Amino acid sequence: MDLKMDRAALETFLAREFPQAAAEMTVLSVRAGAAELRLEVSDRHLRPGGTVSGPSIFGLADVAMYVAVLSALGPEALAVTTNCSIDFMRKPKAGQALVAEARLLKLGRVLAVGDVLIRSGEGSDPVARASLTYSIPPKR
Amino acid sequence: MDLKMDRAALETFLAREFPQAAAEMTVLSVRAGAAELRLEVSDRHLRPGGTVSGPSIFGLADVAMYVAVLSALGPEALAVTTNCSIDFMRKPKAGQALVAEARLLKLGRVLAVGDVLIRSGEGSDPVARASLTYSIPPKR
Amino acid sequence: MDLKMDRAALETFLAREFPQAAAEMTVLSVRAGAAELRLEVSDRHLRPGGTVSGPSIFGLADVAMYVAVLSALGPEALAVTTNCSIDFMRKPKAGQALVAEARLLKLGRVLAVGDVLIRSGEGSDPVARASLTYSIPPKR
Amino acid sequence: MDLKMDRAALETFLAREFPQAAAEMTVLSVRAGAAELRLEVSDRHLRPGGTVSGPSIFGLADVAMYVAVLSALGPEALAVTTNCSIDFMRKPKAGQALVAEARLLKLGRVLAVGDVLIRSGEGSDPVARASLTYSIPPKR
Repeated sequence: MDLKMDRAALETFLAREFPQAAAEMTVLSVRAGAAELRLEVSDRHLRPGGTVSGPSIFGLADVAMYVAVLSALGPEALAVTTNCSIDFMRKPKAGQALVAEARLLKLGRVLAVGDVLIRSGEGSDPVARASLTYSIPPKR
Repeated sequence: MDLKMDRAALETFLAREFPQAAAEMTVLSVRAGAAELRLEVSDRHLRPGGTVSGPSIFGLADVAMYVAVLSALGPEALAVTTNCSIDFMRKPKAGQALVAEARLLKLGRVLAVGDVLIRSGEGSDPVARASLTYSIPPKR
Repeated sequence: MDLKMDRAALETFLAREFPQAAAEMTVLSVRAGAAELRLEVSDRHLRPGGTVSGPSIFGLADVAMYVAVLSALGPEALAVTTNCSIDFMRKPKAGQALVAEARLLKLGRVLAVGDVLIRSGEGSDPVARASLTYSIPPKR
Repeated sequence: MDLKMDRAALETFLAREFPQAAAEMTVLSVRAGAAELRLEVSDRHLRPGGTVSGPSIFGLADVAMYVAVLSALGPEALAVTTNCSIDFMRKPKAGQALVAEARLLKLGRVLAVGDVLIRSGEGSDPVARASLTYSIPPKR
């Protein structure tokens, strides 16, 4: 896989196509088929009790995989998630940003498949893992 | 399975424990191990292009299964999602509420397993399906 | 969805293309996008302790969904499973055939998605549930 | 995590508890919470066309995760798979053994979660990935 979009190109693309995601997530690093993103946790991501909500963790995994797909595919706003299987393994630490590491395992003609590990704070055990499939529109 | 909480009890419980979910979702009906919920779609659930975001659909599936679990288990705020596998199959229709039908397939000592179908508008083909596992805390 | 292959056509197709599956599974009934199959459990499906092995249950779910796809798509030997998420919920009863009910939830241009419930003996609680995605080859 | 069973102990345990798996799979290496296994592909694993069947790949992923769980948990014949989500990404090469790399991501009181990458031949792109949850019996 070759790198089709670098970090700056990906952040510009996200800010234009997915402004909500871009407002709260930062692309920390990118390689062809791999990306690391950070989610700044704020009140709107919290559940009662202070832990990060499932939909917020799911959303971070989804965008991290999307960025990994784009890094190897180029700008393709119409790639859509068709499947996600996610395991919630530990409670995120209070007051910590979440960091997602996504890697693309297959970039096919119609499907892209990869997985994501999400940590809460540097070097800690993962709070969640997800595998995702994206459908790639024809005639690109 | 016996019904441990009726619709009124579930709505009161949700409003107290998960006020964010309760503010946008309505419990339409409930039986022991089955629940039907509606999500009123507003701007904050939309992605660019006007379709409902993945995290919003995931969140609805998650709460619908939670309500189905509680209906057969009784009030248990500490049940947590450990796994979700979700297939996004069709684009939701613009301007339609989403309706989720959840059914519990197993209520064990430590795990509850079930699945959810989500439709966009009455009687239409499903936009998503999800299967979820909840972990039930010990010593209840 | 229209019925493209009836029970007799499906059994002939399976016997030719998947003789191993056809030797141990029976198509009990079929509608457009739905199929019911039975697996006769023999020694080669058992794990120590007498329960049916995970791969045998997986294999039944996979073939049941394949038959449901073919019922609505017509004979297509090259459709392949791209994803399966399976929950093992209960131990199958000793000495009982397994029965799988598959339903197709989406038949798209490139992907077919559905789910399967597997029971051990008539009317009993499900021993497993699975959701599967099949990839459909182009130019059919 | 500490190593509770080394390679020799795991092979002895598998041969006694799961003789069918032990007959066709080799534990190549093991660390606490990680294991590498090889499946010698023979006729009984093949589908028409010469590719390895889905149930055979599933079975390898399942045993590889089981070995990774035991490596950190110690001998526990009663740990059972409760969920597996598997992506089939590429056709295995004809005439090649499959190699599975399993890693444990969480070893909790009641659940163990991990994932597996499966390759067909040294250093090649993965043919499948799987994530699995095992339920651990109480009072060990």
